Amino acid sequence: MNFRLVFKVTGKSLMVEAIAMLLPLLVCLIYREDPTPFLLTIPMIIVVGFLLSLFQSDDHFFTREGFFAVALIWLLMGAFGALPFYFSGYFPTYIDCFFEAVSGFTTTGASILTAVEPLPYGILFWRSFIHWLGGMGVLILTIALLPSLGARTLHLMKAESPGPVVSKLVPKSSQSSKILYGIYCGLTALQIVVLRLAGMPWYDSIVHSFATAGTGGFSIKNLSIAAYGNPAFEIIITIFMLLFSVNFSLYFLILCGKVRQALRSDELRFFLILVAGSIVLITINIQGLYPTLGESARHAAFQVGSIISTTGFASTDFNLWPEFSRVLLVLLMFVGACAGSTGGAIKCSRVLLLLRCIRREIRQVIHPRAVNVVKLDGKIVEESGLRSVHIFFSAYMFIILIATLLVSVDNYSFGTTFTAVVSCIGNIGPGLELVGPMGNYALFSGFSKLILSLCMIVGRLEILPILVLFSGNAWKRS
Amino acid sequence: MNFRLVFKVTGKSLMVEAIAMLLPLLVCLIYREDPTPFLLTIPMIIVVGFLLSLFQSDDHFFTREGFFAVALIWLLMGAFGALPFYFSGYFPTYIDCFFEAVSGFTTTGASILTAVEPLPYGILFWRSFIHWLGGMGVLILTIALLPSLGARTLHLMKAESPGPVVSKLVPKSSQSSKILYGIYCGLTALQIVVLRLAGMPWYDSIVHSFATAGTGGFSIKNLSIAAYGNPAFEIIITIFMLLFSVNFSLYFLILCGKVRQALRSDELRFFLILVAGSIVLITINIQGLYPTLGESARHAAFQVGSIISTTGFASTDFNLWPEFSRVLLVLLMFVGACAGSTGGAIKCSRVLLLLRCIRREIRQVIHPRAVNVVKLDGKIVEESGLRSVHIFFSAYMFIILIATLLVSVDNYSFGTTFTAVVSCIGNIGPGLELVGPMGNYALFSGFSKLILSLCMIVGRLEILPILVLFSGNAWKRS
Repeated sequence: MNFRLVFKVTGKSLMVEAIAMLLPLLVCLIYREDPTPFLLTIPMIIVVGFLLSLFQSDDHFFTREGFFAVALIWLLMGAFGALPFYFSGYFPTYIDCFFEAVSGFTTTGASILTAVEPLPYGILFWRSFIHWLGGMGVLILTIALLPSLGARTLHLMKAESPGPVVSKLVPKSSQSSKILYGIYCGLTALQIVVLRLAGMPWYDSIVHSFATAGTGGFSIKNLSIAAYGNPAFEIIITIFMLLFSVNFSLYFLILCGKVRQALRSDELRFFLILVAGSIVLITINIQGLYPTLGESARHAAFQVGSIISTTGFASTDFNLWPEFSRVLLVLLMFVGACAGSTGGAIKCSRVLLLLRCIRREIRQVIHPRAVNVVKLDGKIVEESGLRSVHIFFSAYMFIILIATLLVSVDNYSFGTTFTAVVSCIGNIGPGLELVGPMGNYALFSGFSKLILSLCMIVGRLEILPILVLFSGNAWKRS
Repeated sequence: MNFRLVFKVTGKSLMVEAIAMLLPLLVCLIYREDPTPFLLTIPMIIVVGFLLSLFQSDDHFFTREGFFAVALIWLLMGAFGALPFYFSGYFPTYIDCFFEAVSGFTTTGASILTAVEPLPYGILFWRSFIHWLGGMGVLILTIALLPSLGARTLHLMKAESPGPVVSKLVPKSSQSSKILYGIYCGLTALQIVVLRLAGMPWYDSIVHSFATAGTGGFSIKNLSIAAYGNPAFEIIITIFMLLFSVNFSLYFLILCGKVRQALRSDELRFFLILVAGSIVLITINIQGLYPTLGESARHAAFQVGSIISTTGFASTDFNLWPEFSRVLLVLLMFVGACAGSTGGAIKCSRVLLLLRCIRREIRQVIHPRAVNVVKLDGKIVEESGLRSVHIFFSAYMFIILIATLLVSVDNYSFGTTFTAVVSCIGNIGPGLELVGPMGNYALFSGFSKLILSLCMIVGRLEILPILVLFSGNAWKRS
């Protein structure tokens, strides 16, 4: 392991975090709030980042260094990003701040705050802004901003890009990350404007758009989007949550005029079928709970969009829905968004590939002599690719079960414990029962909060980087 | 698909069921009970079985026919085995009887009875005896009794043998099934004698030994083994539950004097580590609940043995234990017994192989040029074998999630619904909350009982045969 290189990259990433913190500092000044939390934190990050970036190394970047660096960066981003929360005095302990910051950077949106409304504008802005930063990966941001790292970006992207297949848009990855960011910023700006036009105040529009773009889910209201009681906001946010769940390379295809090619994506179709089917089933299941069918459908669409996109906003308390709707939402928590989006969880393309592998096995029994291959978008998926998907899936499930065991020491019900873990590893936010959309994670012990924070990072970085970090072998010098 | 052959084999298997029913009929006569339930059922099975066995066919047995036949046989065994329950008048509906019979044949032990003690001896004997029949597979029994099927046994064994690797004991499978049955009968007889010597009445010893041997779990007491309040019974049954969870080919090795080879089994070691670790953790976790540490350890050992062997007996109500112990038991429900035993669930060897695949993936990242293979018992496991394990695991998890959604229409808590499904597909019996060891499955709707019955068969037959049965392609004539 080339530690010098890992430290250098980590140092540069921390410098970016320090620069990003100037924006909430500005918000503090605009609203004439106490800027101390940021004034204390920024110099600390700059010193540590600067010292780390002093490490000299050649640019020999293997996958292991990429994985190691990504894991370390996300941990440190959370650790330092938590400091403004800590200095603000609104959070009980540093572990709570760490949980909140990791939840932000990983775009989970699980909160330990029982009430968010008393918090100052600057702190709430930072809380939502880290969703946006985390959304496409602080690291890719680093790459786009710091072209000096250009040569090593492929491995870093491999470690971080959410989904099983990295389909490079253009040959140079620093260029493709710029295109992705263009789309990302464009969609975010569009959402801010549309929400503002619908009547949401500027500040609220901005923070909610940040949280939507990153598929995060932190709100500045205790009741989340339900607080506004405005159907227009709900419909707009539903549409944008779904837009941010789609593979961004499809937008690139559409921009290039290849609309038909984009719409032929197997994953997109699977995603849309899941969304439409779930909305219909839940609408039927909950229709007795709301005055009109339209309102039931609106809440069903919002919650399905919120969960499958792994955002986690709430337009109503789905914890009060019948068990069928609740379990259906839990199933969507496993599936998650499309690969190559800002969403989390297993991803639609992986689920689709697993289902096709099972179908292939059945066909093999019925027609033993037929040649059976698994295809995606008409192309044969190699066995090594399928193997990665299988290993991802089993590791994902094992980690859920083991984390559920660890969090169960807090002695909450099985439904609470299990869905808290599923929600955190899938980067969603709410679960069922005590961690439902109107509940929060304050009830857990410090130990469980650390386990759940780790689950969020494990899920966000697609498991393997964290397993590499915790493997004894990886720590040997080379 | 060669339906004639499938029907012929199914017919012969039903004839075996009819013969097996003579034993509970005898029990009825001994205890001077009304024999009508069996006198009505036996002729019905004989007629259907005889008509089906009239089908003439060549012996061209492909895997698809094997899978199809096995699935059909288990469904019909349940359907006809339910009739004595139905005619007895102690069960509310036929669906309840079907659930109870499938739970028996699949060695699950989940019951819809709120009280078992009022039932006649004959009916209770049949209920436990089908555990024993199901234990090693009614079908292999069929093969051992009806050598005319000899030529086709390999495919049937492949479909039914519980576990990823069929390690044939001796070249001829009808001979190896006889050896397995010898061990099975010998261990059952030993347990009956030991329980009797410890003071349990003959009848009780026999039915509980049947239920232990098949890793089933039906008891003739409302409080299961806890009803006796006799630590000796609990210790004896704990030991035998663990003995019946071990791969039977290891006993064959031991009988051949190859004790060291048997003890070197990776799966056995993994199983023993899991058992020992779980007992220690639960003993520590529950020590405040019982007067002495010894009693805590005894209950921990009994419950761990009961769940990992997928038997499901109870020596105490573990539903009242702290959440950590409860979740640990749920984790063991996923793992299950060793391959080649009468136990159910995913099986230790599969879990071990999945963990080794994940370890290989981590090593591949750290040392990209090193050759990485997955081994079991010192031998390299082929990629095709690992692929089957992966597909089994993902299908197992998908079925759990989808079945949880279907059963959730009954609107019970997530913990109840989810653990009911996990327990049924793993052929265990008890779950958590309302389906805990002192609860039962009576509360579910007919629809959910059918779904859960199907889960039991899916789990018992290792998924693929049932998927083949439900695949449209399989129904085409060839």
